[in-house]
Amino acid sequence: MRSTDELKCLFDEAIAGHRRSLGRLLTVVERGGQAAAAVNDMAHAVGGNGHVIGITGAPGSGKSTVTGQMLRLLVAAGAKPAVLAVDPSSPLTGGAILGDRLRMDDGPDSFIRSMATRGQSGGLAVAVPAAVRLFDACGYNPIIIETVGVGQVEVDITGAADTCLVVVAPGWGDAVQANKAGLLEVADVFVVNKSDTPGAKDVRRDLEFMLDLGHVSGHEVRRGSRPNIVNTIGISGVGIDEVLAEAAKHLERLASDGQLADRRKRRIAIEIRSHLQQQLAETVDALIEGPVGGAHIDQVANGSMRPSEAVQALYSGLDDGGCL
Amino acid sequence: MRSTDELKCLFDEAIAGHRRSLGRLLTVVERGGQAAAAVNDMAHAVGGNGHVIGITGAPGSGKSTVTGQMLRLLVAAGAKPAVLAVDPSSPLTGGAILGDRLRMDDGPDSFIRSMATRGQSGGLAVAVPAAVRLFDACGYNPIIIETVGVGQVEVDITGAADTCLVVVAPGWGDAVQANKAGLLEVADVFVVNKSDTPGAKDVRRDLEFMLDLGHVSGHEVRRGSRPNIVNTIGISGVGIDEVLAEAAKHLERLASDGQLADRRKRRIAIEIRSHLQQQLAETVDALIEGPVGGAHIDQVANGSMRPSEAVQALYSGLDDGGCL
Repeated sequence: MRSTDELKCLFDEAIAGHRRSLGRLLTVVERGGQAAAAVNDMAHAVGGNGHVIGITGAPGSGKSTVTGQMLRLLVAAGAKPAVLAVDPSSPLTGGAILGDRLRMDDGPDSFIRSMATRGQSGGLAVAVPAAVRLFDACGYNPIIIETVGVGQVEVDITGAADTCLVVVAPGWGDAVQANKAGLLEVADVFVVNKSDTPGAKDVRRDLEFMLDLGHVSGHEVRRGSRPNIVNTIGISGVGIDEVLAEAAKHLERLASDGQLADRRKRRIAIEIRSHLQQQLAETVDALIEGPVGGAHIDQVANGSMRPSEAVQALYSGLDDGGCL
Repeated sequence: MRSTDELKCLFDEAIAGHRRSLGRLLTVVERGGQAAAAVNDMAHAVGGNGHVIGITGAPGSGKSTVTGQMLRLLVAAGAKPAVLAVDPSSPLTGGAILGDRLRMDDGPDSFIRSMATRGQSGGLAVAVPAAVRLFDACGYNPIIIETVGVGQVEVDITGAADTCLVVVAPGWGDAVQANKAGLLEVADVFVVNKSDTPGAKDVRRDLEFMLDLGHVSGHEVRRGSRPNIVNTIGISGVGIDEVLAEAAKHLERLASDGQLADRRKRRIAIEIRSHLQQQLAETVDALIEGPVGGAHIDQVANGSMRPSEAVQALYSGLDDGGCL
């Protein structure tokens, strides 16, 4: 582990624009633990006001292509965007991802970083907010978080952004399926990608129909207003300017009606919860794998204790034993 | 919520072979809470010694087809199998699943049940062991747990079975990707499905190569012996008898070398851990959403408190406040 002085030195360099130092700090953040918490605190002290954009959607919907095109346009417009590509479960989509990443521009005016921690979704829930804060402190704006999978972790991560883009496309991952997966209710802007392919019209119609019917459960309550829908053709860049314009418009609306502060507090709440859950998970693991846990497991296995009794005994023992 | 008497009545009926009562109890178990814990305790008291088989693999590998064929052969051989199809994240694969389920035999000699709790992977980690115990108490054997996704929850669920089958097939989800996703290290038997398609030979060769090299991280330590590989063509049923034979052989080996008891204790440990984590998650949520959590979040948001300070203050407050 690096000393606090070393971390501070790397941090000062990163703030001053040294890309390698930023890269090293992102690795520190990804590994977690006390060093990661120290870096997170440093970035928090510097602050920043970057627009955090989440982008999610089904595998095959073309999220990465859309993200790459957004990056290109942003750089051309003089912005300094960062992309954090998050892959919580390292799922079997892995093969395609590297290729997509390589196709993205990663020039001096942007920063692209992939994060994957196999079997450690709790780790990602802690690492992503810290990485975002680090990009923010270094002046990157917007900060785009692209999630690869479609599980709850992804929905949580994307839902904690200022603006959440949900990409849908014909086929696997159409609107109905996206709704089932809980993706629609976190959307602030919908992107109907591959809009030149058969079925794209249907996807858009389904989406509007579901919004009309209020079928996107919880959306009105959680996100405030009906999301706009943008048609894109990721591969040729059609519609990407409109996606960026919609995202900017959304940020303006949030800022003007006071919602932006609420969203950012909610992001902090999710971050703190993730830290607490991670620490508690370690406590529980130590208890279960220790002699007390072992004795209870033996008794459940030989039938002399009910499962619910073992759970309650261990739960009430969590604070007695000075575990917390 | 149903009363304990009602649950006991349903339970007695389920044990006696009433399918609708079993179905209702599975719903109780799926919903969680005290009623689920009561049913789990009842099933634990009755016990059972069914063979728990986990089956997992990439989307598109043909897991469901293989499972359906296994079910058919088992029923034909006079067994009374149950299938629990688990979909932790309700991912965007959803569309295909219902169709697969419908194609499975669900006659009087078998029981098929799907379980999905969107956004509640913790809920599934608790519900699945209870459902398995319920099937076991009702005399179903084997009990096949089929997971749909490829995330950590799926690996955990499948890894807690007596015997774990991992299905690989050419294309998306080949052997290298499956290894990355942590699927290989939980395998007791590999099924190379779609073995009549181009690329199947490569998948098998890659698999054997990785096993030769010891590249399947942790496998020797965790699972004890090199898994056998079976070629199948799920759609026509080729090789399914061999899959069942390998699964039975694996169970025999576990029983004869004393590993079966260890695996079942490990399953109980995972179950108890999931219960504890679920209860702690509720405690943490209440704290974060309460006034104390809110005050800390405000301070982090306005810059007057570091994130790590807020985490530590709330963590040490978890037992002070009588939360546990």
